[in-house]
Amino acid sequence: MQQPTSRLEAFCDGVFAIAITLLILEIKVPLVEAINSEHTLAQAILHEWPSWFAFLLSFGTILIAWSNHHGVFKLARQTSPLFNFTNGFLLLTIVVLPYPTSVLAEFINTDSARTAVMFYCATIVLQNVAWTLLFHSMLNPRDLSKNEAARKVIMKTRVRCIYAFVVYCVINTLAYWFPITALCLMAALWVVWIVVGASISEEDIETI
Amino acid sequence: MQQPTSRLEAFCDGVFAIAITLLILEIKVPLVEAINSEHTLAQAILHEWPSWFAFLLSFGTILIAWSNHHGVFKLARQTSPLFNFTNGFLLLTIVVLPYPTSVLAEFINTDSARTAVMFYCATIVLQNVAWTLLFHSMLNPRDLSKNEAARKVIMKTRVRCIYAFVVYCVINTLAYWFPITALCLMAALWVVWIVVGASISEEDIETI
Amino acid sequence: MQQPTSRLEAFCDGVFAIAITLLILEIKVPLVEAINSEHTLAQAILHEWPSWFAFLLSFGTILIAWSNHHGVFKLARQTSPLFNFTNGFLLLTIVVLPYPTSVLAEFINTDSARTAVMFYCATIVLQNVAWTLLFHSMLNPRDLSKNEAARKVIMKTRVRCIYAFVVYCVINTLAYWFPITALCLMAALWVVWIVVGASISEEDIETI
Amino acid sequence: MQQPTSRLEAFCDGVFAIAITLLILEIKVPLVEAINSEHTLAQAILHEWPSWFAFLLSFGTILIAWSNHHGVFKLARQTSPLFNFTNGFLLLTIVVLPYPTSVLAEFINTDSARTAVMFYCATIVLQNVAWTLLFHSMLNPRDLSKNEAARKVIMKTRVRCIYAFVVYCVINTLAYWFPITALCLMAALWVVWIVVGASISEEDIETI
Repeated sequence: MQQPTSRLEAFCDGVFAIAITLLILEIKVPLVEAINSEHTLAQAILHEWPSWFAFLLSFGTILIAWSNHHGVFKLARQTSPLFNFTNGFLLLTIVVLPYPTSVLAEFINTDSARTAVMFYCATIVLQNVAWTLLFHSMLNPRDLSKNEAARKVIMKTRVRCIYAFVVYCVINTLAYWFPITALCLMAALWVVWIVVGASISEEDIETI
Repeated sequence: MQQPTSRLEAFCDGVFAIAITLLILEIKVPLVEAINSEHTLAQAILHEWPSWFAFLLSFGTILIAWSNHHGVFKLARQTSPLFNFTNGFLLLTIVVLPYPTSVLAEFINTDSARTAVMFYCATIVLQNVAWTLLFHSMLNPRDLSKNEAARKVIMKTRVRCIYAFVVYCVINTLAYWFPITALCLMAALWVVWIVVGASISEEDIETI
Repeated sequence: MQQPTSRLEAFCDGVFAIAITLLILEIKVPLVEAINSEHTLAQAILHEWPSWFAFLLSFGTILIAWSNHHGVFKLARQTSPLFNFTNGFLLLTIVVLPYPTSVLAEFINTDSARTAVMFYCATIVLQNVAWTLLFHSMLNPRDLSKNEAARKVIMKTRVRCIYAFVVYCVINTLAYWFPITALCLMAALWVVWIVVGASISEEDIETI
Repeated sequence: MQQPTSRLEAFCDGVFAIAITLLILEIKVPLVEAINSEHTLAQAILHEWPSWFAFLLSFGTILIAWSNHHGVFKLARQTSPLFNFTNGFLLLTIVVLPYPTSVLAEFINTDSARTAVMFYCATIVLQNVAWTLLFHSMLNPRDLSKNEAARKVIMKTRVRCIYAFVVYCVINTLAYWFPITALCLMAALWVVWIVVGASISEEDIETI
């Protein structure tokens, strides 16, 4: 028999897969007219480094988000209307990501770098809020967790999300003065989420 | 064994997931040349509010449509050729949505706001017609409902769709004089569809 | 247990779903600058009718192709390397479709209508060849059909595909003198494919 | 029961399916203004041959990659964190492909052909590295292979990937002097990968 969450997972997988693939469309191909012996194609491609940087940042963000999303569904026994909404809100923050990624790529080496970075970070903060709400909705109003072990993981992760919220807000404030440093810290936080994700999918919970 | 409807569901999920993700491509990234100390990046992003408004409206529409579509398939035991066609027509109204969304975003704060809103509402009316036909095709010419309880839900929802058709037509007429009010009413109707959707997926039907 | 063809089906479903959804991106949103009291938004949207016509034509083509593709997999017990290739070739003819659709939309009311229509028809002919090869590869070199009844359906459909090839070539030649008539005949052939598709999925074969 | 790798496969299938379908967006539709009796639509479409060439090259690359990816998952009993990362890296090299494809299409008949071809080949080399790491992560640190036969196939394929790396590097160096020849060799290597893929999915391993 199908799991009650399987079609929801298929839809979410589709959204994650498309969002991650659309990112490449944001990187502009150099124009033929712009290439000459002074400004070679190799230089033009290298000149696009902010686009590649932003692309990799968002690619990593979505890939880790997908992986953790996958882990979350292993903890759930069923869904509830509220869970569906918080999950929809999380998808919104994923679908939106190509836009701040483009803004970041376009403006990171201009005078508006600060605004671009803060806008990008704000999207990540919003995604963090979505995760927190998602975990919250797994315990309230109904307990959707698969078993006692899963419930403990959900509670622990919810607390971690709130800590992360504080950290992200600090980074976002920092971005006002040191945009590039803030971005690097943002990327460094991936490591934390990978570890959190790994703890979600620890095998003792997966005993379905 | 696979459900007879499972591959159809997978295809529809794909279409919904792509349509919802493509919406973000319609929001234009500000051009570097357009940004200066007079007109900052933050102002340029805020200036895109009609795009964000239209994006959120369509995101909500597709998400709720997907959720209810999901519910509909739980009521069906099998498919019929007519059901496949009405379902294809529903997918058409989903796939088309990014276009009126763009038109709305582009023209909502111009003199053509009225036409843009009426065009957008017309797409929603068309989607409403598609839903009505879908529910109709679940009872005619063959009864595809899973059981007696499912059949009652389908009949009730079909009637609700016809009521909704009247309401949407009134809103669309209203849009001629009060475009913004009509749009807000349109968004308010989401609440109704969420409730209808919840009634479709009531657990006493889901006893597969 | 999963069917041996299930992951291949999932991939194909993805390709069909994306190709059908990308079609909408080809329809251009009117520019704000082009709209004034002389040339209203409503006129500008109506002016895009060739795009809508081409969109609907290709939407129908892909939807019917997906539906029949679905039917084909019900006839197969397993896959072979040659089947994978012919299936890949069929996917190629689906993925390519948004391009001739755009060309058709762009040029149908210009002097180049003839070329645009013939180019579009040529893509459909190519797709027809792909279908013929697909059915052929289901019987050669290995017989992949599920049972005797399935084998007969495959043989019958292969013959029909060859008839259709002749018909499509005639239509394509006709397009040289009567492009619009040829397009309408092309759309009329949908009815034939729907009937063929229905015969593929007759329930006596589906006894899995 | 679902396989432990099934949702990962669904996500990857989505990414492959989208990447292969997005390729068509890179081929530019001729502009109406550029067409006149001197320069006909047919000529304009033929003039796009570099785009079609690059499109077919990348279509084949992604299709074969998907097919082999499919084969790889048949060899695996479970996943590990390292496997997830190397798989994510492989997806990155797939998602990125539309960009070098566009660059190739844009510059293959200009003075910058050499750079464009070398950039394209470099992406293929990167993909080759990703495959090597993927096979490596199936044996280290944990053995994820399904059975002894699968383990042998993985080891053999890993060695073949390393040979292929050397071959690709030679081709890429060759591209400095003979860009077109290098591209043709690149396409010729498809045959090798199809054979390798076929050996992965030999039926004696598929005894699930």
